[in-house]
Amino acid sequence: MGIIMKGTEVARAMKEQLKQETEQLRAQGVFPQLTIMRVGARPDDLAYERGARKRMELVGIECNVVELPEQISRQELEEAVRKVNGDPKVHGILLFRPLPPHLNEEAVIHLVDPAKDVDGMNPENIAKVFSGDDSGFAPCTPQAVIRMLEYYGIELQGKRVTVIGRSMVVGKPLSMLLLKKHATVTICHTRTVDLKETCRNAEILIAAAGSARMVTEEMAGTGAVVVDVGINVDPSGQLCGDVDFDAVEKKASYVSPVPGGVGSVTSSVLAEHVIKAAKMAAGKRA
Amino acid sequence: MGIIMKGTEVARAMKEQLKQETEQLRAQGVFPQLTIMRVGARPDDLAYERGARKRMELVGIECNVVELPEQISRQELEEAVRKVNGDPKVHGILLFRPLPPHLNEEAVIHLVDPAKDVDGMNPENIAKVFSGDDSGFAPCTPQAVIRMLEYYGIELQGKRVTVIGRSMVVGKPLSMLLLKKHATVTICHTRTVDLKETCRNAEILIAAAGSARMVTEEMAGTGAVVVDVGINVDPSGQLCGDVDFDAVEKKASYVSPVPGGVGSVTSSVLAEHVIKAAKMAAGKRA
Repeated sequence: MGIIMKGTEVARAMKEQLKQETEQLRAQGVFPQLTIMRVGARPDDLAYERGARKRMELVGIECNVVELPEQISRQELEEAVRKVNGDPKVHGILLFRPLPPHLNEEAVIHLVDPAKDVDGMNPENIAKVFSGDDSGFAPCTPQAVIRMLEYYGIELQGKRVTVIGRSMVVGKPLSMLLLKKHATVTICHTRTVDLKETCRNAEILIAAAGSARMVTEEMAGTGAVVVDVGINVDPSGQLCGDVDFDAVEKKASYVSPVPGGVGSVTSSVLAEHVIKAAKMAAGKRA
Repeated sequence: MGIIMKGTEVARAMKEQLKQETEQLRAQGVFPQLTIMRVGARPDDLAYERGARKRMELVGIECNVVELPEQISRQELEEAVRKVNGDPKVHGILLFRPLPPHLNEEAVIHLVDPAKDVDGMNPENIAKVFSGDDSGFAPCTPQAVIRMLEYYGIELQGKRVTVIGRSMVVGKPLSMLLLKKHATVTICHTRTVDLKETCRNAEILIAAAGSARMVTEEMAGTGAVVVDVGINVDPSGQLCGDVDFDAVEKKASYVSPVPGGVGSVTSSVLAEHVIKAAKMAAGKRA
């Protein structure tokens, strides 16, 4: 029976640390602030927004939301982003994606000031994550996986880590963060031929495939650490991850559930990034 | 006995294609041009420069060299780069690295216009390689590995490919190019614990470790494809790769030598990139 890696516990531990840091900043006259930019009102975005606002409040970060109409033109959106970029009170910007299809996402991601780009969407930050430069921002979800592994004391150096998924929001940046921690990283995906064998060989298996319960018992090595980054809805309408939790839990040494796993850590990483951005901005002014 | 993958053969095949393309461009009034920017006179740079000039001439690309003094200030170097950026006759810029230590490489790599950055050093291009966006430029050496595998008809999709090395000039961008070809990629490095086993498990093994003859016979799987990206000088002063060629050649199905392997393809990729840049520039003006 594997130990269940609870996202809420990781978030609780992070909260204390983050609160201390915002207190220190306030004592220096710096009031960390996040602006969420939301185009339209997708239920996913609204759900994440509620969680993020609550988390920011808990750790002492001001959070405001710029609501933009779904039909907003590219020029208007760019203008709105520029305005927040230029506001010295705002340290972090979270622009929900995907944007409505009529907007040129490519142009907009260039617009967010890299120094405020707390979810790592600007190419400057993407390049930094790729090169292992800590001065930038990684996307929050892969960073949340790292925080979870750290909290549970799981050593990464020299370990065989297999990542299922090669997206730019999880698989690829996560692989780079793991490489920076000196793991030996294997990246699998839909075209991988011997997925079962490759996964079973991993000491740490991270599923970010976006496919409900695709990691079966036989894909997990005995005693492996299994982290589930998937968020899916199964045919019966139930929220579930990429891992068949009940089956894998028997074999793994550690396993993260969905819900209540990595997803519960993401907004804490967002807060961490806003604080980092606030510190960098304060350092520049000093 | 493995088939020897000869870089000169790959380069010869590429030459015909590249010549055709420059002829077509000239017929449209576009004269592809590369500017090499060299600070000081490191022997490595001079050797590469000679090869690159010759290759450009062979395929119909104009090539000129901006020689800059080793003691050049950062301001002067930035000014020199800006001048070439702004010259519409120049389609590609190759700035040799490493730069002398007194220069801020980080600032300079941002200066090279991404559209002329034919060796993929600008963060815009790094981010594109990472995300699998073909519109940018990868560094020439990893792209040369791909060209070599293509020339020898080696299928990558679904294959277990192990890359030894995680540098930003070879290992990491190469891993992304392989992933884009749908290989299952494992990245090894100095902290990898079970290097032997991980390498032996690979159907395609690529050595970019920078360590003379470190890939021994027992690290190569029987029938594996082994590509050597290393350029080292052994204790007896002889040029050699990362692979113990004589030993591995007996076991591998394909193996690339050093010298005469990947290194002989790099300047052809550079030419390919200059032509791509010239086409993009012509397309923009049209």
